[in-house]
Amino acid sequence: MKLGIFKLGERAFRGVVEEDRIYPLEGKGFYDVRELQILPPVRPGKIVALALNYRAHAAEMKKPLPPEPLIFLKPSTSVIGHGDDILLPSMSQRVDYEGELGVVMGKRARGVSQEEALDYVMGYTCFNDVTARDLQSKDGLFTRAKGFDTFAVLGPWIETHLDPFSLDIRTYLNGQVVQEGNTSNLIFDVPALVNFVSCIMTLEPGDIIATGTPPGVGPLSPGDKVEVEIKGIGKLTNPVAVRGW
Amino acid sequence: MKLGIFKLGERAFRGVVEEDRIYPLEGKGFYDVRELQILPPVRPGKIVALALNYRAHAAEMKKPLPPEPLIFLKPSTSVIGHGDDILLPSMSQRVDYEGELGVVMGKRARGVSQEEALDYVMGYTCFNDVTARDLQSKDGLFTRAKGFDTFAVLGPWIETHLDPFSLDIRTYLNGQVVQEGNTSNLIFDVPALVNFVSCIMTLEPGDIIATGTPPGVGPLSPGDKVEVEIKGIGKLTNPVAVRGW
Repeated sequence: MKLGIFKLGERAFRGVVEEDRIYPLEGKGFYDVRELQILPPVRPGKIVALALNYRAHAAEMKKPLPPEPLIFLKPSTSVIGHGDDILLPSMSQRVDYEGELGVVMGKRARGVSQEEALDYVMGYTCFNDVTARDLQSKDGLFTRAKGFDTFAVLGPWIETHLDPFSLDIRTYLNGQVVQEGNTSNLIFDVPALVNFVSCIMTLEPGDIIATGTPPGVGPLSPGDKVEVEIKGIGKLTNPVAVRGW
Repeated sequence: MKLGIFKLGERAFRGVVEEDRIYPLEGKGFYDVRELQILPPVRPGKIVALALNYRAHAAEMKKPLPPEPLIFLKPSTSVIGHGDDILLPSMSQRVDYEGELGVVMGKRARGVSQEEALDYVMGYTCFNDVTARDLQSKDGLFTRAKGFDTFAVLGPWIETHLDPFSLDIRTYLNGQVVQEGNTSNLIFDVPALVNFVSCIMTLEPGDIIATGTPPGVGPLSPGDKVEVEIKGIGKLTNPVAVRGW
């Protein structure tokens, strides 16, 4: 099923998505998705993201392949959902989209084997790992470049029933395809990532693993519309604007 | 005042520290601190930490001084408090202590100026930024090296009334002084850090800024006792053990 968080007026509620209908988990009837605001489907305690997890992306970044998964964190304050503005801060002159598969943890996971890894996963969502490319190379560390408010885009909802091994990912910029990938090309696949990360730090329900981006990353400009589409999940759409503070 | 979280049997409570006495914020009377377990004084949503924020530490690491604050994140799952074991994971062969001043945010801060920065600070605590030194240089990124469970040591409590500009910091390993520093030697001081970080990401109440470590970092071994002492706050003491998983 597709599970999301929606808002009507001041009221936020969980609901199951079936085509254009949203069935609230509590209460009667359904809504048309167009009547509702779509909120981030989860408020992650932490977001563990992957650098260079597709060969072709490592090649475009002119970086060697990492021998082990190379992880970084995005703060939970950077999370926005479907339809929210990605805000370009004045501190950066180049902010890129990075479409990805996001893994949503469903159970506390500590030192979980690859074989058991998927038993700890609640489902999958679209993720846009927005990145200030100039600050990434300037700092060496990724925290500033990837940690601005609005730079972790999640949604539109979580698909709980999905095979993560061969998912088409597409990113569109103003309607044009700019990234195309498939999770079969991940260097470290979802079970390998859950195993690796959970052997370092405890993963908690709602935590996200962002699995890395395929090739085709590029810059965002004010007024752009960026979309991350994963077959079987849906399309995560966000306008781009200039940050006002 | 010194504000902490304490545990007696199964009950956790907030209390004010006066010398050896803990006065619960709710209820009558007081406890002797030796009767109580000391919990981390805050559960941070995020921990923003500083790399190379003392000249002499940058020199011992053979790294150039960063032109701007260089930040990284530690996950909230890595937090432990006074008296808890720092656990050495088998993935690393060299885990170091790093004693630091921790700044505890008290108000939501976004784009705060240096002049107003201290109005957003709740207080200060001792912080041990435990680091797998071998993985830090192997990965380049710091997340794995600094993100293991038990690698963010906080406490024993928060001192709300303290001048952060000239605080002596000492780290002791098995009773011997191994690090000595003073926050007057910070390259970027507390107001500069609150300003810089809050211009990137929203800081929320309970978030921590770990201000960076002075020179003298070195390795921990099973059976060690490590202490971070800051004048005016107290002493954060932790035993070191091998991780069982």
